[in-house]
This record gives sequence, C-alpha cells and structure tokens, in this order.
Amino acid sequence: MKPYYAVIFTSLLSENTKGYHQMAEQMENLAKQQQGFLGIESARDNLGITVSYWKTLEDIKKWQANSEHLLAQKLGKEQWYQWYKVRICKVEREYEIDNQPL
Amino acid sequence: MKPYYAVIFTSLLSENTKGYHQMAEQMENLAKQQQGFLGIESARDNLGITVSYWKTLEDIKKWQANSEHLLAQKLGKEQWYQWYKVRICKVEREYEIDNQPL
Repeated sequence: MKPYYAVIFTSLLSENTKGYHQMAEQMENLAKQQQGFLGIESARDNLGITVSYWKTLEDIKKWQANSEHLLAQKLGKEQWYQWYKVRICKVEREYEIDNQPL
Repeated sequence: MKPYYAVIFTSLLSENTKGYHQMAEQMENLAKQQQGFLGIESARDNLGITVSYWKTLEDIKKWQANSEHLLAQKLGKEQWYQWYKVRICKVEREYEIDNQPL
C-alpha cells in the first residue's frame, strides 16, 4: 500500500439546515472529480462523520481552495454547522475483512 | 498540537446483530480506560464509521491485543459484520469551528 491521506470531517448541524443536504450532495459529486480523489465515506446520526481519501496533501489543499467548495465552506461555517472539526491524516496501515457473498 | 493517531473503523453490519449493540457499548467503555486513549466519535446510518484517537501507535497495538477486545473482534468478524475496514492514521493537522452558544 502506498501511503495516502484521509480528511476526517466531524460535525454537528445547527437548526438551520436549509440548503444543506443539496449542497452536501453537490460537494460530494464535485470532490469525486478532483485530482487525487480516492474515495469518500459518510455516516450521520446525531454526529456526522465524513472521511474523504486523497493521494497527496497537495490534492487536499487544492480541493480546500476550490472556489465552489470555498463558498460551501463559508455557508457551512455561517449557517449549517453548530460545530465541526477537520483532521488531516496520513493513512499508515489498513486492513479489510469482506464476508459479503459473491 | 502534538501529532497523535486515529483509527478509522468503517463497517457494514450483517443481518445477525444479536448482541452487537451491547458489545459495541462495552468496547467503547473499555477503550476509554486504555492507556493513551484520547477520544472516540461514532455515526451510523447504513455505513458505520467509528474513529478513535490515541497518543501513540503502541497504545493502539495494545488496545487491539486486549483480550476482551480480541473476543469482540472475533465475534464481529464471524457474526456481526458483513464488511469492515480499519485504517491506522497519523493526524498531521487539525482545526475546529465552534458556533455553540456558551
């Protein structure tokens, strides 16, 4: 495995989520088109966790500076999120168990 | 910020989840008592994502080798999970936005 990078985005939504779900979907689709994008995984119950995976730190920087993404980040900060935390990580080791029938 | 480590555990449950939720809670409580434990965040809708945070790689190894945890891992592999993936990561950078009222 070549080392790659993960962005762990943990969040609590505010009461005002108007437009949020559409934007979240839009940003996920846009992320998938970016250079170095490897994958994305999301789950939410009360807390939301989204982890996106990238080839390099440079790819992550470019995605964070994408103009449409910057607008989404601004709206998120001002309206949609009560709290969020972003962690940029280097994936050092991984393993997987697959019991799914063929 | 001192560098620290994250274990990203992503999973799909099987149809047989008898005993799973109780064990998950028990393991979370046990993890919190381990050396080097820094925090844990979980969310599930279809996909489940649990991220636990640790001071060192050595602390993670010890937790993975904990005998009660080994039993839970065995049951998880055999019964509860259709699929899971574990990624061990080094957290290199982080930032946080807090709009919560005091």
